Amino acid sequence: MLDIKRLSISEAAILLEGSRLKSEELHIPMCTAVTDESGHLISFERQDGGKISSISIAIDKAFTGATARKGTHVYNQLCQPGKGTFGIHVTNGGHFSIIGGGLPVTVDGVIVGGIGVSSGTADEDLVVAQAAVDYFRAKTGFKE
Amino acid sequence: MLDIKRLSISEAAILLEGSRLKSEELHIPMCTAVTDESGHLISFERQDGGKISSISIAIDKAFTGATARKGTHVYNQLCQPGKGTFGIHVTNGGHFSIIGGGLPVTVDGVIVGGIGVSSGTADEDLVVAQAAVDYFRAKTGFKE
Amino acid sequence: MLDIKRLSISEAAILLEGSRLKSEELHIPMCTAVTDESGHLISFERQDGGKISSISIAIDKAFTGATARKGTHVYNQLCQPGKGTFGIHVTNGGHFSIIGGGLPVTVDGVIVGGIGVSSGTADEDLVVAQAAVDYFRAKTGFKE
Amino acid sequence: MLDIKRLSISEAAILLEGSRLKSEELHIPMCTAVTDESGHLISFERQDGGKISSISIAIDKAFTGATARKGTHVYNQLCQPGKGTFGIHVTNGGHFSIIGGGLPVTVDGVIVGGIGVSSGTADEDLVVAQAAVDYFRAKTGFKE
Repeated sequence: MLDIKRLSISEAAILLEGSRLKSEELHIPMCTAVTDESGHLISFERQDGGKISSISIAIDKAFTGATARKGTHVYNQLCQPGKGTFGIHVTNGGHFSIIGGGLPVTVDGVIVGGIGVSSGTADEDLVVAQAAVDYFRAKTGFKE
Repeated sequence: MLDIKRLSISEAAILLEGSRLKSEELHIPMCTAVTDESGHLISFERQDGGKISSISIAIDKAFTGATARKGTHVYNQLCQPGKGTFGIHVTNGGHFSIIGGGLPVTVDGVIVGGIGVSSGTADEDLVVAQAAVDYFRAKTGFKE
Repeated sequence: MLDIKRLSISEAAILLEGSRLKSEELHIPMCTAVTDESGHLISFERQDGGKISSISIAIDKAFTGATARKGTHVYNQLCQPGKGTFGIHVTNGGHFSIIGGGLPVTVDGVIVGGIGVSSGTADEDLVVAQAAVDYFRAKTGFKE
Repeated sequence: MLDIKRLSISEAAILLEGSRLKSEELHIPMCTAVTDESGHLISFERQDGGKISSISIAIDKAFTGATARKGTHVYNQLCQPGKGTFGIHVTNGGHFSIIGGGLPVTVDGVIVGGIGVSSGTADEDLVVAQAAVDYFRAKTGFKE
């Protein structure tokens, strides 16, 4: 039997709060999704003004961060014409995101969930996702 | 030009809170989704122990409540073999829910959003969704 | 942080073996799928002669058993026109199975995975799925 | 009337075993899928630690190897902007894989199945898929 660690709803709420604080600081209303380590949605929040088209993108980014185990911006670089990973963006029923803003959430080297942020540029989304993870670590004391 | 009334994220949070309180009282961890009046997700929460298969069902229920403008339990009765509405459960890409637990959220007779609850029986889901709407009215003072 | 128990690949192999033994006894070549507790596929086997149309059905049954937490034959009874759960068979992108032969796999009262069997009648599929779970318990000593 | 040669379940098991041995040697837990010559799944195995996002990718790679009759890494090179095959990665409902790690399995010049491996880099996946085919030949004595 395998022993798996998974984010709780209260821990997911801390990630949402971290995302909210950073996006308010940047004045970019965001969609933020948090999944468990298997890529299943735990919580989601679209701030007033967040993009409708970003709802599913945020969810897909969190899914990808958790299950493919790299930031979605890393896959963006790997998934280029001429590189071996080109084509991964259409897998998993179109839910594999290669747009920056999705990150795995790790605790003691183990992936316990994923976060996905969308509504800004890919760079802005990544800044907010990383800030949410940093906030999560500061609040909980969990180590990377 | 149309003026649209729409739930804000803080009002959606009140609906989530109402759902959480009732589901804790019933000891049934739920998935709860809140959409805007257009059926687009504003917020979602899967409590620890909520069913994975209920994630998309809760979202579909909220979508249906907001956009089809009736409780999903009403469509459950209308969507029977031999009745004129039979078949509506496979429309909208399979996202039209006819399982109780989805409700429109109205203010002054106008639909401003939808709520969907899933993980219990259809009856339990409806009880929690209605309790969330009642809580929303009590907290905000908005009239039906 | 939540602590989750999950079937390992070697435990999934025991379930496949149990399914194989029973289906050989019944002379019905089967498709058998085993998922983890989150509904994600761990292992799959289509015996020589198993139905092609049963590949995805077996996978969907295992997904449903694990994530909706009841045997798919139970949902078959609940999902009837006139009952509150009618319509659940078209949810989850069409992957929610209500055909007998899908079961949750529990250990000490906790769901650790799911099994789905398909190629016979729904009753035969359920007999084989249950035999696989019984075999798993006998081999591992895990309690229901 | 056509006579079709097709992998049996016991031959598919040899391919899975070959994949397992190589992935253990490389310390990369893999998802491995084996399909028949028609691209339909015969067997699948996700080793403990294999990526969830790789489940469907491995299945798609095996499907593509069997049905499009080239290694998926070959299509990766052909499917580039400006080349005539660009766009093939979105065909077949998104199941046409152009990421290395999918191979046809041939016997006496005839395709009898496909294998797909995923969880490492495309290069690692291809190494493991090829090792599985080599192992299959060594064990069975079948010629390419």
